[in-house]
Parts: sequence; C-alpha cells; structure tokens
Amino acid sequence: MTTPLRLGIAGLGTVGVGVVKIVRQKANLLAARTGRPVVITAVSARSRDKDRGVTLSGYAWEDDPVALATRDDVDVFVELMGGENGPAKASIEAAIAAGKDVVTANKALLAHHGQTLAEQAESAGRVIRFEAAVAGGIPVIKALTEGLAGNDITRVMGVMNGTCNYILTRMLDARLSYDEVFAEAADLGYLEADPNLDVGGIDAGHKLALLASIAFGTRVDFDAVELEGIQRISIEDIRQANDLGYRIKLLGVAQMTGRGLEQRMSPCLVPKNSPLGQLKGGTNMVVIEGDAVEQIVLRGPGAGEGPTASAVMGDICDIARGIRLSTFGIPAKSLTTARTAQSNSPAPYYLHLTLQDRPGALAKIATALGEHGISIDRMRQTKHDTTDAPVLIVTHKTQRADLDAAIQAMRASGVMAADPVALRIEMV
Amino acid sequence: MTTPLRLGIAGLGTVGVGVVKIVRQKANLLAARTGRPVVITAVSARSRDKDRGVTLSGYAWEDDPVALATRDDVDVFVELMGGENGPAKASIEAAIAAGKDVVTANKALLAHHGQTLAEQAESAGRVIRFEAAVAGGIPVIKALTEGLAGNDITRVMGVMNGTCNYILTRMLDARLSYDEVFAEAADLGYLEADPNLDVGGIDAGHKLALLASIAFGTRVDFDAVELEGIQRISIEDIRQANDLGYRIKLLGVAQMTGRGLEQRMSPCLVPKNSPLGQLKGGTNMVVIEGDAVEQIVLRGPGAGEGPTASAVMGDICDIARGIRLSTFGIPAKSLTTARTAQSNSPAPYYLHLTLQDRPGALAKIATALGEHGISIDRMRQTKHDTTDAPVLIVTHKTQRADLDAAIQAMRASGVMAADPVALRIEMV
Repeated sequence: MTTPLRLGIAGLGTVGVGVVKIVRQKANLLAARTGRPVVITAVSARSRDKDRGVTLSGYAWEDDPVALATRDDVDVFVELMGGENGPAKASIEAAIAAGKDVVTANKALLAHHGQTLAEQAESAGRVIRFEAAVAGGIPVIKALTEGLAGNDITRVMGVMNGTCNYILTRMLDARLSYDEVFAEAADLGYLEADPNLDVGGIDAGHKLALLASIAFGTRVDFDAVELEGIQRISIEDIRQANDLGYRIKLLGVAQMTGRGLEQRMSPCLVPKNSPLGQLKGGTNMVVIEGDAVEQIVLRGPGAGEGPTASAVMGDICDIARGIRLSTFGIPAKSLTTARTAQSNSPAPYYLHLTLQDRPGALAKIATALGEHGISIDRMRQTKHDTTDAPVLIVTHKTQRADLDAAIQAMRASGVMAADPVALRIEMV
Repeated sequence: MTTPLRLGIAGLGTVGVGVVKIVRQKANLLAARTGRPVVITAVSARSRDKDRGVTLSGYAWEDDPVALATRDDVDVFVELMGGENGPAKASIEAAIAAGKDVVTANKALLAHHGQTLAEQAESAGRVIRFEAAVAGGIPVIKALTEGLAGNDITRVMGVMNGTCNYILTRMLDARLSYDEVFAEAADLGYLEADPNLDVGGIDAGHKLALLASIAFGTRVDFDAVELEGIQRISIEDIRQANDLGYRIKLLGVAQMTGRGLEQRMSPCLVPKNSPLGQLKGGTNMVVIEGDAVEQIVLRGPGAGEGPTASAVMGDICDIARGIRLSTFGIPAKSLTTARTAQSNSPAPYYLHLTLQDRPGALAKIATALGEHGISIDRMRQTKHDTTDAPVLIVTHKTQRADLDAAIQAMRASGVMAADPVALRIEMV
C-alpha cells in the first residue's frame, strides 16, 4: 500500500500539537514502519489564530469538527478535543457515519458512550482506537488486547492518575498537607478544569472501566466503579502508613470474581517496596494478571505532550498498517453485561481512629472489632497532646462489610472523637 | 473469517505443552478474540511415547519437523524445538517455502539467521513472529514495533536472563558464593544444557541483538554485542555494591550514538531503588526510551510454561486476526547495517582492586587514575587480615578506554595482588 493515510485532527491542545509535530518530523520513519505515507490534510480547533509553535499552513482548516470529520480527504478522524458529550461525540458519530476510522484520547466519552460508538463503528466496518485514553504513553490496551490474547485475565490494577500520584508522593516527600499540595498542583497546571475529575478518582475510574471491559470481555460499566477520592487523605495517614511499611496510592482494581465483576478506584495502602509502592510523581503503572502470563507490570508517563502523542501515533500506525480490531478486543455486540460485585474480597485494612481520651474507650473499640470477627494484626496509640487519642490499627484480612459494621458499632459506642479513616491494604 | 487457523507444533517441551493446553482449554476465548477457531492439526517431537500430561490423540503425529512444517493442513508452523541450526532452521525454511507463517521462540536461531529467514519469509509474503524469544511473557516486541511506532527509539535496556538474575539476587540474599548458587541453579534445572549460554550472557545477548534490530531498524548483529558474563562476580562485590547503594545486574544496553550502535551485555551496577535494581529472581525487565514517550518499563516473568506460551499465543492470535507485519518491524531488505560503536559512552565505574599491602601502593593506583584523567568519587580501603589490601573505588564519569588504560598502568606498576574488577555503573 502506498496510498497515503490522511488524518484530520480535531483539537490542537498539548496532545494535538504533539501529534502534528510527530507527523511532520518523522515522515520517513512513519512511512518505513507502516509502508505508506502518513499525512495530515485538515485540522480544527477553537481558535485559529493562537500560536501553537507548529506550522499548520499546509492543512485545511475547519472551524467545525463535524465538518472536519466528514471531509472527503480524511481517512482517520483524530479526536483530541475531550469532553464527554458535545462536539467530541457529535464529530466521532459523524466520522463513523462518513466511513472514517477514529483515534481518540477521550476516556470520559468512551467510559459513557463506548458501547454505542463501538457498535456504530463495527456495523460500519470502522475502528475506534484509544490507546492514549488509558495510562498515557504506556501501550497497555495493545498489551491486553493483543499481546496477552491467550490469557484469561484475572485482575487488572493500576495507578492511572498522575496528578493524584503527584499529590500523594509530594505530601510524603515535602511533609505538606493535602491542601498545600493541591494548591501547588493547581499552580503547576496539573489539575483538570474540574479538579474533582482528578482528586475524586473519576478520571482514573473512567480508565479502569475501559480496561475492565477489554480484560473481561464485558460492556463498559463506569457506573459500577466504586469511587473514592484522595481528598480525605491526611499527611498524618501518609506518614503513619510509611512508618508501617506502606505507601498510599489511588489504586484502581478490576477483578472478576465468582460473585461478578469488582471495580474500585480508591486510596489503598501498598507495600513500600512493591513496584506500585515505588511509583513517584506523575508516572502511571498498570499491573495485569493472567492465568498463563502470571503478572506483567507496565510503567510509564501518564500524561504530557510526547507520551500521549506517542500513544495516539501507535493507533494511527496500526490503522496505516491495516491492523483492524474490535474497539474492546471482541465485537461490541458480543460483550457481556457483568454482574456488579461489591468489593468484598477480604483484605487487611488500615484504621485510623480518633478516640475520646477516657478510660474504657479502647476496650469499646476492641470489642466492636472482635464482635464482627475482625482480629488485630498491629495496633499503636500515638503520643498526643490533645484530649483526643489517635489509635492506628492494622487488621488481619477481613471483608469490607464486616469492617463497616464494626465501624458502625464504634460510632454508636460514643467514644469516637472523629470519623474513622479505613483504607484497604492491597498486597501486590 | 470463520476458517480455522491450523497450527502445526514442533517441539513438545515445557513451552510446547503450554501452548497445547491453552489451545485446548480456551477454544471459545480464542475464537471470540480472533474471530475464528484456532486449532492444532499436527505435532512433532523427539519422543512420541513420553507422557506430557496433555492429550495429543486428536493430532496427526510427524517424527520429522520438516514433514510437519510442509503439511497441507498446517497454516502456521510453531517452532518450539530450539537450537541455532539443525531441525529448527531446516523446518522453518521448509515452512516458509511451503507458504506457512511461522511463530518461534528461538532467539539463538534468529540472532544468527534472522535476516536471511526474514527476507525469505517476506519475499514469500509470510510472517515470522517471535515474541516469546525475548523476555518471556512480556509483550515487548509488540510494544516496540507497534505501540511505540511513532518514536525514534533512543535506548533499550534490560535484564533478560532470569537465571543470571536469580543467581545474583540469591547470592546477596543468602550470602552464598557464585559457585554455591550456580550449583543450586543447576539442581533446580534453571540452567541451559550449556550453562555458558546463561552465565556467559550469550542468551541475553541474543535477545538484546533482536531488540536492537527492531528498535533501530538495523540488521541483527549479534557478533557486535560486547559480551561479559557473570562468572567473575563475587559475593564480596555484591555486598560492597549493596553497601554503596547499588545492585549488580547482568544488564543489556543497546543505544544509537553518533558513532554508531552500541550493544553490550555485561554485569553493571544499578541504583538499588531503581526499577532495575529492585528486580528479583527470574523476573525480566525491559526499559525502552523513545523521543516522544520518554521511558516505558515492562516487567514480567522471563521464562516458564505459562508466560512463554502466553507470548507464543499472542503471536498466533495476531496471525489469526490478520495482523501481518515485517519480522523486524520494517521490511528486512530496508534494515540498515549499523556501524558498530565500542561502548565508550562515559559512565561512573566501580573498581575493586587488590593491592599488595606495602607503602606507596595506593599512591601508585591514584597516580595511574589521575594520569588518565579519571577522578575518584568515593574510595574505601576495607579491613583485611591478609597481606593483600582490598580497595574499592567509585570513579566519576569516565570512558571505558581511559579506564582500561589506567588499569594497564596499575598492572604495570607492580603493586596489584590480583586482577582488578571494573564494573560500569548504569544510571537508569
């Protein structure tokens, strides 16, 4: 094939500009690798006049991404605008209807509309590729869909929001509070326009839902992801966890169990010396477990111009080479609807309790745990100058439901001076 | 496509049996993922009667792998016999000539004959896939060839021989000598029939040469790999390196420089807390650096039935899905012949010197280093009860050629009681 592959790129922010640069600077490399020229014919963005540090003069300009998506001289519509609905969705639908393939980095859109869009694309014989939507530059979708295709996947885990990992590692390293580091991250431009997408775990939850679909052959079900953000993580918990040999990470886990599919994105403790525990700053990590391969760990930059553009280009090169797979690895119509399982697989938990400093308080707590069948692995009462006594407990393996019942009983006992912090310890 | 993909498997050792099990047990999964049934039609191995714990009765048997490779009812010839020449080479050539695709795990064969075989396959419109030949279950060839296709790769590094990594980590953990752990590894069946393939770095060197070809678009050039094994690594060096904050790993590095392609496989010091430094036992790790993606780290089991069969199945599924790429990522005839660069990029070095315990010895050593422009970052003379004085030196960055000249001068000075150990410190 020597027919050029013609791209229409909608969205010229950091990632879009990164893609333009690669296509311009690496024409020979891309042609050698894919066997045909890869060219840009048209682009679209909100502002035509902005200086983006890259020449766009050779490309047709469209103000309307839908017009771009349906141009005759576009083979692949590259959607890098973002947004769960609006122009992104409208233009991808228009592209498919016009017979174009689609490459996107839009996790929110796919987490909500992936099934519908995949069905539309597959009935039209078109592909939707989205490597850049999950874990930035790490080719994790390719690894899951293709490299590990001979495995029954048992578990997928990962740290997939660089901003949260930056905040948590910076809190520990600089001994700063959540609010202080949050303000820093905002100044550095690390946060989404709605910061809750990051710190509330929503962005990472979107990614987890997409990976779960590919891993287990199930329809994307973002609403079933149990979400818990990092907003309540204190420097005290980070330090205590560190003293106990753990790091706190916003960890996503998707696991197929006898009860159904567990999907959770929540702050967890992981062993300090594990690959996940070692992960610093904005780096992402995905752990894939399969019955044949055992465990694969993939680590790389989770965001940024180069890494995200690298992932987009991987998808584009696949299309140029004629690699055409179903959006989620198997035809969208064969994806099953998984039963949602509450995350109740047993695990040790870290508990940070604040007790009123009076006789018998600890006994009531210990009783509440004992009565719910929860045994204590380690306990320490830290030094305190206030009237409240902080108590740290690491439990033996227990189910979340039992722990929640015990916490209910603690609250009812009238000795708690603050709401407890309970974090799962994930052995990885 | 609902035509079955028909496999002929030659070699029913650990990996071959692993592949048979997956094809038998996961028929539905494989058909769902690839869109067509994947079946075995015929097998071949040295002994027909051996109990391999898996049923072979449904498959035709061939004593001769060449006969298997050319059967009309075989679409893909799966070569899992091993060996650089002999039946493996003959049967792959026969398979290509008969119009079959080939999947192999044979690194030695491809490191020596990859170029010729790739050219044969590509003129015949056939593919040769070999994910299982490099880093076991880790889909690293796919990541390099496809996922990172938009990058100029700048460096590929890795720990790719599980046996060596087992020996080195076990020496540290159990405080055992090289000879003791080597004997253990032999008892556990971890060593190749010719153990020099493992501990001499040859097996890992084959893998590095294959990765370098894919990464840089160059012809496989195993002879240009600077090879140094782990046979001379002492428990003393492992402990001293550990005290200095490093681990010793058999590390492969392939790097394109202005002077040409550097390829070396040698014991190096890496920071204890780096992903490579953390790697224990038989696990493999590959680090890929590209101009867009920055750095990707892939970690997983480097050998074993399940992981290696997983990699073979990934290749088979790609063929079933119609994914057909050139053997080394670009057509074999376009691979360039790289100039070989001696590994002379500057790095700090670890030196373990054994001096005669007499006045002026240290001064001569320091003079030899100084006269070759090598400055000392850290030096320690350890306690000794013998007449020889062990001296440890960490240099600032220097070129290997200068260091070798300094070592020559040390030898000539007549104060050395034993040959020095000089290991590169790789910052990763």
